[in-house]
Amino acid sequence: MKKPCGIVAILTDFGCNDYYVAAMKGVILDVCRDVEIVDITHSIENFNLYQAAFTLYASHRYFPEGTVFLAVVDPGVGSSRMAILIVSKRYYFIGPDNGILTPAAKYDGIEKVYMIENDVYFRKPVSKSFHGRDIFAPVAARIACGLEPFRVGRELDVNKLHNINIELFMEKSDDCVVLKVIYIDRFGNVMLSHNFRNVIETLNVDVGDDVYVYAGGDRILKAKILEVFSHGAPNDLILYENSLQLAELAVNLGSAKSLLSVNNDDSIRICKYGY
Amino acid sequence: MKKPCGIVAILTDFGCNDYYVAAMKGVILDVCRDVEIVDITHSIENFNLYQAAFTLYASHRYFPEGTVFLAVVDPGVGSSRMAILIVSKRYYFIGPDNGILTPAAKYDGIEKVYMIENDVYFRKPVSKSFHGRDIFAPVAARIACGLEPFRVGRELDVNKLHNINIELFMEKSDDCVVLKVIYIDRFGNVMLSHNFRNVIETLNVDVGDDVYVYAGGDRILKAKILEVFSHGAPNDLILYENSLQLAELAVNLGSAKSLLSVNNDDSIRICKYGY
Amino acid sequence: MKKPCGIVAILTDFGCNDYYVAAMKGVILDVCRDVEIVDITHSIENFNLYQAAFTLYASHRYFPEGTVFLAVVDPGVGSSRMAILIVSKRYYFIGPDNGILTPAAKYDGIEKVYMIENDVYFRKPVSKSFHGRDIFAPVAARIACGLEPFRVGRELDVNKLHNINIELFMEKSDDCVVLKVIYIDRFGNVMLSHNFRNVIETLNVDVGDDVYVYAGGDRILKAKILEVFSHGAPNDLILYENSLQLAELAVNLGSAKSLLSVNNDDSIRICKYGY
Repeated sequence: MKKPCGIVAILTDFGCNDYYVAAMKGVILDVCRDVEIVDITHSIENFNLYQAAFTLYASHRYFPEGTVFLAVVDPGVGSSRMAILIVSKRYYFIGPDNGILTPAAKYDGIEKVYMIENDVYFRKPVSKSFHGRDIFAPVAARIACGLEPFRVGRELDVNKLHNINIELFMEKSDDCVVLKVIYIDRFGNVMLSHNFRNVIETLNVDVGDDVYVYAGGDRILKAKILEVFSHGAPNDLILYENSLQLAELAVNLGSAKSLLSVNNDDSIRICKYGY
Repeated sequence: MKKPCGIVAILTDFGCNDYYVAAMKGVILDVCRDVEIVDITHSIENFNLYQAAFTLYASHRYFPEGTVFLAVVDPGVGSSRMAILIVSKRYYFIGPDNGILTPAAKYDGIEKVYMIENDVYFRKPVSKSFHGRDIFAPVAARIACGLEPFRVGRELDVNKLHNINIELFMEKSDDCVVLKVIYIDRFGNVMLSHNFRNVIETLNVDVGDDVYVYAGGDRILKAKILEVFSHGAPNDLILYENSLQLAELAVNLGSAKSLLSVNNDDSIRICKYGY
Repeated sequence: MKKPCGIVAILTDFGCNDYYVAAMKGVILDVCRDVEIVDITHSIENFNLYQAAFTLYASHRYFPEGTVFLAVVDPGVGSSRMAILIVSKRYYFIGPDNGILTPAAKYDGIEKVYMIENDVYFRKPVSKSFHGRDIFAPVAARIACGLEPFRVGRELDVNKLHNINIELFMEKSDDCVVLKVIYIDRFGNVMLSHNFRNVIETLNVDVGDDVYVYAGGDRILKAKILEVFSHGAPNDLILYENSLQLAELAVNLGSAKSLLSVNNDDSIRICKYGY
């Protein structure tokens, strides 16, 4: 049975310029001086629930057992959306019930879900617009320091949780597959919606082969399948297995995003033959 | 009587790209390995004393008793401006005497002010241009680890402290009030210069009513008074009580700053009736 | 003989938006819960090895003895470039062998270099594209928590280390010196490639004098030699000794970079007389 390890890892869309993140950290340390705070990121785009869900999904799994994840991207603050605590196999997730916690918690294996409603654990007065400071931060600090989860409120049926789909997606047609762009990172690397291994097996190609990439318009771009982008020549477009085992397009020492002119959720067709 | 709690919370305009913040953190940990460092922000606009003062004023109050606040926005470094330590009811504030510490320290209740002049506690050699590293950081670390405040230098008359006004301001005329923009956050929410409750009582309006907003030019915008922005329809302009109890204008899922075309210190007139 | 002090200080070009930095921190804390993580910066320009080397060189020296520096700017990840651990007089440096560690380690005094090759200390499976998470972070955590350096792999001849030159450079001609721009900070301060004291002795000028600055094109700008930029009038161009003892050009309350239109590695000529 896991125990809290004293870490609270925070993800928000509050940026690093305003007083919001500092206020949350102050509250956490005031509630329990022993908490160790780790920033996941505060640069989620304003209100971008998908990006929040994806970043938590991708990063949570590396943290020690017993970490409390505190995620606040919360356009519905003050409305009827619930505040929740999800207890998963190895972790605790705290935030609004708008789907941002669900993909990570499902990946780890959800055990219980609680509604956060016992206001004895809140900071008073509770504002209408900053539950990150007044509800989520103090409850996260208490859970990290040993409060039993059931004390925060009644259990919620796991099937009632809001969810955001971070699903594997691949459509096959003739000698091509269609994939979605699921994330673009700082380097302009374009992460695609299925495992690299499945993509190349479906296309019946292998490392060393070329494939043909259609990302909208009439352009067809040739991409080399390599083990990693650094094996390509500068400015080569590379298809490879990224650090989450997904198919990813990158340009060695350049930006695949710029080359392909794509954005999140765009479709990309990859074919064995170019016509 | 408070004791230092081992936390040093840092606010600067050094950004996160250069070596300055890391140098300060290195010095702090080298002076006292037990300090826990918390970043408030390093993204204060270059030399913007008002923004520094406001952010410290808004955030300090959530930290545990005994926190040491280290604020370095210091265009006068190397000139005759003094280095000071303010001991307040619950906290310690360290930085240049240019007003950035004063609003927060006053809010908490100033007990004593000391000039930081005892160079036995400085890092040597003391540079002319980086007192954050050579004077403020090592003194903050020592205070956080138990140095008695009077050891840093002679006492200073509290009336001699520089100050930056973060004052409540509201002017009434007929059925209108004039307020100042005191802060605009990442979401484009526009924080105004008086308590929400006083504003709506002065206008004799209440939650659920509409008011009329003049922010320059000929445009009049209707704003709904709601408990929180999420109660509005998307793109509605909302007047509500923010997390510091101040009146604030926001656009649900949008930016009030963009809609109103306002900046810090601009005047905004809010009226009960639109003409 | 130094011992690890439990601090891992991290420098990357991963930015603060993506999941990469959080993954590394999660791995570090999972390997050794007692590590204290300090961010140097994650805003190194993509693949900018020089900027990484300079920032580590400038910042490492302020940290406590026994700090482990973990630097990951790694365009060659997955290629044949080696992973290395440098043990210096006071510190440990971990990262790719592409030169980014070498100037800092040399400054401190290199004692031993090891190839990181013992995969018992790696996170499995080891990806091809994210050695920061799978190799460098877990090894840094183990070194910080007491693993003996020789256990990571065979010793490497220090002369085989890749290096990046951060050299003092100054060329004298008549009554002028030519220097290089080696760094430009957030304030637009322009750091030059030699010690301030040597520059003014070579020019036979002193604090209080004027010099003449040629930064390309036909323009000649007069700069005052002062002890620190704050002694200048607003918008004055100032030549002074920066916090690393180097010559630096700044504009009081403005940007020397904008005034001079210079970039890293540009040449600047400074003369005793203007013609």
